[in-house]
Amino acid sequence: MRRLLSFLLVLCLLPLALAAQTKSVDDKTLMGFNRDNSARQKSLEAKFDSSLRRENLREWMKRLSARPHHVGSAYGKENAEFIAAQFRSWGYDTKIETFDVLFPTPKTRLLEMLSPERFTAKLAEPSLTQDATSNQQNEQLPIYNAYSVDGDVTGDIVYVNYGVPADYEELERRGVDVRGKIAIARYGGSWRGIKPKVAAEHGAIGCLIYSDPRNDGYFQGDVYPKGAWRNENGAQRGSVADMPVFPGDPLTPGIGSVKGAKRLKLKDAPTLAKIPVMPISYADALPLLRSLGGAVVPEAWRGGLPITYHFGGANTTKVHLKLAFNWDTKTIYNVIAKMRGSENPDKWIIRGNHHDAWVNGADDPLSGLVALMEEARGVAELAKTGWKPKRTIVYCAWDGEEPGLLGSTEWVETHADELKNKAAVYINSDSNGRGFLGVGGSHTLEKFVNEVSRDVIDPQTKISVGERWKNRILVNGAANDKKEARDRSDLRIEALGSGSDFTPFLQHLGIASLNLGFGGEDGGGSYHSIYDSFDHFTRFVDPNFDYGIALAQTAGRMTLRLAGADTLPFEFTNFAETVGGYVKEVMTLTDTMRDDTKTMNQMISSGTLKAAQDPTQTFVMPKTKAEVPYLNFAPLQNALVRLQESAKNYQNAAKGRQISPSIQKQLDGILINTERALTSNQGLPRRGWFKHEIYAPGFYTGYGVKTLPGVREAIEQRNWMEATQQIEIIAGTIRNFAAEIDKATKLTQGQ
Amino acid sequence: MRRLLSFLLVLCLLPLALAAQTKSVDDKTLMGFNRDNSARQKSLEAKFDSSLRRENLREWMKRLSARPHHVGSAYGKENAEFIAAQFRSWGYDTKIETFDVLFPTPKTRLLEMLSPERFTAKLAEPSLTQDATSNQQNEQLPIYNAYSVDGDVTGDIVYVNYGVPADYEELERRGVDVRGKIAIARYGGSWRGIKPKVAAEHGAIGCLIYSDPRNDGYFQGDVYPKGAWRNENGAQRGSVADMPVFPGDPLTPGIGSVKGAKRLKLKDAPTLAKIPVMPISYADALPLLRSLGGAVVPEAWRGGLPITYHFGGANTTKVHLKLAFNWDTKTIYNVIAKMRGSENPDKWIIRGNHHDAWVNGADDPLSGLVALMEEARGVAELAKTGWKPKRTIVYCAWDGEEPGLLGSTEWVETHADELKNKAAVYINSDSNGRGFLGVGGSHTLEKFVNEVSRDVIDPQTKISVGERWKNRILVNGAANDKKEARDRSDLRIEALGSGSDFTPFLQHLGIASLNLGFGGEDGGGSYHSIYDSFDHFTRFVDPNFDYGIALAQTAGRMTLRLAGADTLPFEFTNFAETVGGYVKEVMTLTDTMRDDTKTMNQMISSGTLKAAQDPTQTFVMPKTKAEVPYLNFAPLQNALVRLQESAKNYQNAAKGRQISPSIQKQLDGILINTERALTSNQGLPRRGWFKHEIYAPGFYTGYGVKTLPGVREAIEQRNWMEATQQIEIIAGTIRNFAAEIDKATKLTQGQ
Repeated sequence: MRRLLSFLLVLCLLPLALAAQTKSVDDKTLMGFNRDNSARQKSLEAKFDSSLRRENLREWMKRLSARPHHVGSAYGKENAEFIAAQFRSWGYDTKIETFDVLFPTPKTRLLEMLSPERFTAKLAEPSLTQDATSNQQNEQLPIYNAYSVDGDVTGDIVYVNYGVPADYEELERRGVDVRGKIAIARYGGSWRGIKPKVAAEHGAIGCLIYSDPRNDGYFQGDVYPKGAWRNENGAQRGSVADMPVFPGDPLTPGIGSVKGAKRLKLKDAPTLAKIPVMPISYADALPLLRSLGGAVVPEAWRGGLPITYHFGGANTTKVHLKLAFNWDTKTIYNVIAKMRGSENPDKWIIRGNHHDAWVNGADDPLSGLVALMEEARGVAELAKTGWKPKRTIVYCAWDGEEPGLLGSTEWVETHADELKNKAAVYINSDSNGRGFLGVGGSHTLEKFVNEVSRDVIDPQTKISVGERWKNRILVNGAANDKKEARDRSDLRIEALGSGSDFTPFLQHLGIASLNLGFGGEDGGGSYHSIYDSFDHFTRFVDPNFDYGIALAQTAGRMTLRLAGADTLPFEFTNFAETVGGYVKEVMTLTDTMRDDTKTMNQMISSGTLKAAQDPTQTFVMPKTKAEVPYLNFAPLQNALVRLQESAKNYQNAAKGRQISPSIQKQLDGILINTERALTSNQGLPRRGWFKHEIYAPGFYTGYGVKTLPGVREAIEQRNWMEATQQIEIIAGTIRNFAAEIDKATKLTQGQ
Repeated sequence: MRRLLSFLLVLCLLPLALAAQTKSVDDKTLMGFNRDNSARQKSLEAKFDSSLRRENLREWMKRLSARPHHVGSAYGKENAEFIAAQFRSWGYDTKIETFDVLFPTPKTRLLEMLSPERFTAKLAEPSLTQDATSNQQNEQLPIYNAYSVDGDVTGDIVYVNYGVPADYEELERRGVDVRGKIAIARYGGSWRGIKPKVAAEHGAIGCLIYSDPRNDGYFQGDVYPKGAWRNENGAQRGSVADMPVFPGDPLTPGIGSVKGAKRLKLKDAPTLAKIPVMPISYADALPLLRSLGGAVVPEAWRGGLPITYHFGGANTTKVHLKLAFNWDTKTIYNVIAKMRGSENPDKWIIRGNHHDAWVNGADDPLSGLVALMEEARGVAELAKTGWKPKRTIVYCAWDGEEPGLLGSTEWVETHADELKNKAAVYINSDSNGRGFLGVGGSHTLEKFVNEVSRDVIDPQTKISVGERWKNRILVNGAANDKKEARDRSDLRIEALGSGSDFTPFLQHLGIASLNLGFGGEDGGGSYHSIYDSFDHFTRFVDPNFDYGIALAQTAGRMTLRLAGADTLPFEFTNFAETVGGYVKEVMTLTDTMRDDTKTMNQMISSGTLKAAQDPTQTFVMPKTKAEVPYLNFAPLQNALVRLQESAKNYQNAAKGRQISPSIQKQLDGILINTERALTSNQGLPRRGWFKHEIYAPGFYTGYGVKTLPGVREAIEQRNWMEATQQIEIIAGTIRNFAAEIDKATKLTQGQ
């Protein structure tokens, strides 16, 4: 009956359809599919869309967020079992894989101001009658930063703004020293773990991180429960392990923390914060900041509190911080659910989202997880109709993401060899909200992402989510982004740094990865607090789960197409063009540093810099710096030329290809190896766990990406010898990558 | 004895002096002086410098700021008499010239919030024990805006940010209407009088202007009395007359308000604010702003109060504002002191600073006035040694500047014919503080200003004030300004808008003018409040009057050189280059508007703009706009070519000129006419009082300058017909100006 109706409709629409076809023949074929299979795939996706139910998302979120479910909690384990049971009920081959990980929880938390007046920080988020789960104090993790060390310190405090290296340069110019003092930084400007790391490097004995209302409080919007934003008592939990060195269990770097694994001693764990660290609310920070002496901070440092912000460090404000933790080992529970591929079962399309939270975690991570679950249910529904994916689909619900990507990292480390052989693409999601599609990932998948985004309808505007994404750039983008959105056929996807479970896949093993979600129209301020609840989410983030469905449709299409394509839809010309842009960036960076260094040295030696200062204010003249040499970028430039040619050749060869299933299988193996070719065995300098030569989280930014990290960070650190070495290494990597593409081209051409 | 000593010194230093001479011969001659006279002038200036006494500045400021001295106050009259007595005692031909002007003072001031809760604004600045004059309540003018109309209005309130036209465009897009409502604007972003003007144009029935702590309160620095910045009760008095139409007495536009002058009726006065206006402190504004409903305002609109800023206009906040004024006529007292020129007494160098204040006015205006007085005393000391200026020097202490440049405007209007003949240059100062020299003025004096700035020593750094000014740009300037400071031989002086007493001279009569002062390292926040006191000034602004002396040295040099030069030091190549830049700006402005209009129209019609909006927020789609035509800028471009040639020719002719005293006299007449040639009889459209075609205060910015105002504002208002007409007018003006320069060239060449 249904089929007949469709057929009649097709007949009625025939003239229109023909017109459309004349206009754009290519609209008919999907990347990696031939004409016929494209049509079948589209019809499959229409069925998939129609099977999705927003009520499921609501019900699961309600259930999974009903109690705190952090690592080691009873409810976290229950959640994992619930999720696994669902997957099983849909027909997936499901198991729970466990790991034993270091997970500290607070034993003692004391923060008190001793002078100029006595004040003891509350360090607590009160329950609210408007928020049904906020009163679960017995199960909530208190406000703390995981992987802070134990400590009992007393000292003067210094306000360090975001606490990034540039802030310490400013402090140095202003004659303010944190040695032997406690740094107080505001959240924002970098991943939180950078703040205690840089503070410790500069000699601080402790670190406080507070949520300034300028960043996610009343300055941004009405505070909870009236609005979505962080209220005066809200504080941001979170990990401060040194994840840019390696994520995962701090005691088992590079290997799975399975039973019997060789573990470091706690005292030898390299990624623990070096000093005691604690997050606080701005109600707790205000008395401290208000009492600070010293000079007034620069305008860019000032937050939204109704005070004049001072540097401190003038012996005006003495603070006592005492922290002690239970250094326990906890079991984490990853849910792994597989649907075997019919043609190429040993190539895997992996789709993941974590399930652990800091407290109730409705937004982070459940908003993404429930979309993943509904996606998986929809895929299972298709399978019930007889359809099978060509490649194996693996759904993962990770535990332990919050403390440091524990679940995904330990799983990836444990199964590294198998994954290197089998993993084609990893697709990650995490928090999801109302608004615009945002995608980061391997640039070899950029064209694919753009194609998918044009086929998903935005629930609010009824245009495609790709079109809306583009319109947003055209209206609100920077001038150059606007120009690109007009002139370039594809929208750019972001390079990935870190901050969610894609990191071990992409940066440790070199598995092409994507990370996606919707947002930009949802109110924020509940992040890592007890107010990240079902009540908050359904009032302020995605009340009708419209964008949960949109995420399921988008990630689901990605999964279905990657699992079902004749040929994996990798494409290399966009990658080549984008990496060409990165090479230009590092060249320009060097030139700019050279000019700036020269100018600054001249201003120092001529007295210009001094003459422009207010002589009544402390100003420590910076030292002149060694001149920036000219670096030989030719190896990179030559490698790029090679890459552009290879990318072009593959693009041409792939046009209208007709290849046998056995060649397709071979091609899968070569194509998934292209991303592996972007890694090096030795990894990045001083952090060999990170093996990807194109994308890495910044050593001093944390989540923020550094592209061509080996070269870029060497330049930033003025390490010219290392920069030159890294240019050679990355050039070699790009040549290897091009050679992999050439293999794929030859195979496609039947050579 | 002295002369002999100098001679001996010269002999000793001869080798060094010769070396210096070889390096730069031109250092020896000052603009407008021949070699011998340059040397004499420099020696004169050294004597002048050594006669200046900072104790005088302190003593006079203490005396003049001891009691409130606003227009119509007893102490204001006493001050005028004191100043006049000083000038007389130094030998100046001194008189007090009076005018009768409209000057309203408050009779009733009531601001109360009726809902959501009752609150009555205090509208008072409390006295402080740390501030000796803050307790003079009986004599202080209360917090108010002069030339607000009487009114008794009740209504919902709307937050309009700075209340400039762009803010109302945002309000329109967000569907917020001020019709029938009371607008609340924050100080900043434009001259205050623009706020009620634009509010009334959009249908508001009243206007409140408050001092947000973001702009001059705790966000900037510690508040008074701990620091220099505005405390919660501080409020900014000030005029809200529509001065971009005409300044001066609102009842006597264009004519002096002398006894018997024909006056408009109050109801016909065109420059009174159209709606009741009142300034308030942020302590008074906070309860109102906190209670506002409606959407959250854009980020750029948010101030420093610890609240979420909303648009209001949602019937959440009802306010009652009642204002009534005594519409009195008051007498103002200008002090005019002359020193007759020995060679060319009918050419005047005029130097002015106002003496009236809103309350005690230590900074505004006395910091500038006491420097002017000491300068005048120093000049008088020189005269006692037998020296005489070639041209007449006129020192002026204006009354009534604060309500609307009353004293200077009425004096200029009264003596217009004489001034057109005699006034060579007007040099203005006003508030003065610690830091860097800032100069605005006629671009024909730019080279002269640069020369003077290189000859005055900065009291803090001991380099020249010009060098320090340059260093500041090199260190802190925008990229383009840095480049210019490196590459251009002269630093740019700003074009003048309005805001002090140069306006009638420059923009009504076309008298070349300068405005100067030091600042940038002094703390601000006492502006137009009772805390602008001797105590505040000597703690935070210029504690030792070092920069008062520097101002006397700088402005004194200008006065002495202009009065003593063989030839007036006008120079036209910098003017030509700068005006060429303005022409490029208006051409680029048109091109940018054309592109932006096209892009925006496309975004509106394609639905792009709508698709980028959050559909849960009100967004009123703007209407498409008519396309921007191509304008014929050729007349301006051709006039510029002519001007550049004339400027170059005069520059060449002036090199090493040797001309007779009688020719010099003739040349004075021609040179001072060049600035007159930049005016037109008809003046600017809809504000004929403003006759200068190059510089005017913006009709919608107030103090902020609009260069080439006729063309620029027509373009901004999309009035293409008027823009085309104004291009022709300004082109003609520039040709006339070039013709005047040519006359000077011919005379210099002896033709």
